[in-house]
Amino acid sequence: MKIIKGGVTSPLGFTANAVKAGIKRSKRLDLALLCSEVPAIAAAAFTKNKFQASPIKISSAHLRNRTHRALIVNSGNANCANGRAGDRDALLMTELAADALAINSEEVLVASTGVIGKYLPILKIKGKIPELVDGLDEKNGSIFAQAVMTTDRTKKELAVKFKLGTSIVTIGGACKGVGMIYPELEAAKHATMLCFLTTDAAISRKLLEDALGESIGDSFNMISVDGDMSTNDSCFLLANGLAGNKKINQKFGDYKDFTAALGLITMELGKMLVKDGEGATKFVEIEVKHAQSEKDAKRVARKVSTSNLLKCCVFGGDPNWGRVVAACGSSDANIDPLKVDIYLGGVKVFANGERLRRYNEEKVKRLFRGKDIGIKIDLKNGGHKAIAWTCDLSKEYVAINSKYST
Amino acid sequence: MKIIKGGVTSPLGFTANAVKAGIKRSKRLDLALLCSEVPAIAAAAFTKNKFQASPIKISSAHLRNRTHRALIVNSGNANCANGRAGDRDALLMTELAADALAINSEEVLVASTGVIGKYLPILKIKGKIPELVDGLDEKNGSIFAQAVMTTDRTKKELAVKFKLGTSIVTIGGACKGVGMIYPELEAAKHATMLCFLTTDAAISRKLLEDALGESIGDSFNMISVDGDMSTNDSCFLLANGLAGNKKINQKFGDYKDFTAALGLITMELGKMLVKDGEGATKFVEIEVKHAQSEKDAKRVARKVSTSNLLKCCVFGGDPNWGRVVAACGSSDANIDPLKVDIYLGGVKVFANGERLRRYNEEKVKRLFRGKDIGIKIDLKNGGHKAIAWTCDLSKEYVAINSKYST
Repeated sequence: MKIIKGGVTSPLGFTANAVKAGIKRSKRLDLALLCSEVPAIAAAAFTKNKFQASPIKISSAHLRNRTHRALIVNSGNANCANGRAGDRDALLMTELAADALAINSEEVLVASTGVIGKYLPILKIKGKIPELVDGLDEKNGSIFAQAVMTTDRTKKELAVKFKLGTSIVTIGGACKGVGMIYPELEAAKHATMLCFLTTDAAISRKLLEDALGESIGDSFNMISVDGDMSTNDSCFLLANGLAGNKKINQKFGDYKDFTAALGLITMELGKMLVKDGEGATKFVEIEVKHAQSEKDAKRVARKVSTSNLLKCCVFGGDPNWGRVVAACGSSDANIDPLKVDIYLGGVKVFANGERLRRYNEEKVKRLFRGKDIGIKIDLKNGGHKAIAWTCDLSKEYVAINSKYST
Repeated sequence: MKIIKGGVTSPLGFTANAVKAGIKRSKRLDLALLCSEVPAIAAAAFTKNKFQASPIKISSAHLRNRTHRALIVNSGNANCANGRAGDRDALLMTELAADALAINSEEVLVASTGVIGKYLPILKIKGKIPELVDGLDEKNGSIFAQAVMTTDRTKKELAVKFKLGTSIVTIGGACKGVGMIYPELEAAKHATMLCFLTTDAAISRKLLEDALGESIGDSFNMISVDGDMSTNDSCFLLANGLAGNKKINQKFGDYKDFTAALGLITMELGKMLVKDGEGATKFVEIEVKHAQSEKDAKRVARKVSTSNLLKCCVFGGDPNWGRVVAACGSSDANIDPLKVDIYLGGVKVFANGERLRRYNEEKVKRLFRGKDIGIKIDLKNGGHKAIAWTCDLSKEYVAINSKYST
């Protein structure tokens, strides 16, 4: 398995394009299209926020179709909280793309990201559809990744190549979303941010859905930027079968390899999101070991990853690890406080529920001054583990989000 | 019922004092003592954080005693995560105070607040006990309130006077805590910050505990500064019976009046905490109406009150109310998204799950530029309501918390 430079058009048979439709005031790329030359099967996962945006409603309906050919996305406007007018606009986006591509609108999926509660400038979008479709090219994967950005500072894309039998299979992906990031998955149907995955693997739709669900559980649903769950988060995975591998029909062998590759790409994309978190200057990995259950391990890891206080002292380079203790103890997990050990960058500072009388304080200070901070919590209470990722909470995060809509 | 200027020494028979023991590097008041001239009964509520600080363990043990005479508190050090050494130090604080007061150490309760994971400078404390006890005076309520402050900008104290029969009863209170504030009560035994309440009412211990539990549920456990639950939060209520009222022994009549007064004082103290939240420049009240259950109403109100994104746009004066929608939809409450209405300062912006085509945008902008922001969410789903309070998330919050321990 190999990570390569690439993105959504790295697998065979995918093309993409993006244009400036004037949805963003910044006059940047804000309308993007992804296509498969041949009908692809699709799996998707959406936010469990009760106020789902209109594009999610339309995509959910279109997912009842057997195959899909295209995915249209805009940035700069979430098309959420707009009621029936919003639903009509999201449907119209799929219809406009379908007309230009001479396919059925049910074959088109749709996603939006941006401000909530503003009507979509659908006429601007309509006017740009011909240009968008004309420029479809397998070289335009990066432009697609760029167009879905909002407050992102960097585009996020990646591809993985691996062998299934004698066939070379590729999975490519692009994602966006550096604020309002706190996935809360409970089922494979739920997800957390805008993520677009493509593959040329041949696989059954049921197994494609299972693979997506599995990979999301340990990647996107373990990241947090600010603890706020979005109304628009969507993760799509299109598979067009052009790699020519023997179709994956059973949950072992090739399925395991495919899921491992998908798990790698979603984890790497998830980490990219956190590293580019709004205002982020540092990256934090929280590993929880020996929990009574996987759920408990995840609860502790996620609770620590959303501690504003911890995120502030990471920003300031202040090794105030008592905040790890407080956050750990406030989770709903079954933990025995008298057993817990905490390590900062490999240095044990807390053992069996109390501080160590002596530890290498200089080394811990250096760790907190650095860019990459590893925190390990050993619950010594069972055999399960989990890893969560977050970033620091900086003044810049506050600045970005204090003036976002005006 | 009347709110009066006062604090923990406003009820009859209470004295207090505070000294500078050098626990804080800032050389401010950091060691305080509260006494009742006659034995008082006590009720208390502690954090449900699994890593409870040593003073909570000692106070919990001492609460098994029938009556109490004193409460000793230090600021500048949480005496948490210090293991058996911490437990010994907390116990020693009660013993030192008891010796100087010529009472039993079981009659003394103890609390600490400050940095987690540093040993208490117990010798400094020991050396200051005589001075602390010598200065006990009913005029020193305010000095007590001042000494328990950490990052607080203002001291927080208040008293309420009311009549029970022909007796005048007083409840006084002081509290501290403007960061690591996110109460999560599940039972009367759990609480959220350092709060000291005194009363001269005569009341049975069982009813004193019930009254404290009731009042906390709608006050302290509905406030949030940063969503971080502390290891040290404690709320104490001492009742010495000196008002001479007919002892409250049943859950009606005088009990209702007493609980109403206690509810008022805890709510006002809770709001003071939020208004002085670390870095806070604005105050936000979130009212949720017509929920299916009280639990649901509280879930929605608290979820919205902890949205970092909402708190940032409140800081910036940006009326980005889509963040209220997103936070509301991410709660675990039973809500029907197609029924929800949202009002900002009385202006309806969102009805039946979608934005209003036209609303007074100027008025909403003015509201967000102001200091007091009222958000109302009508779930139209039942008969229960709740109110939560929070403050904005400012750059100053980040600044304060990025350098707290060093």
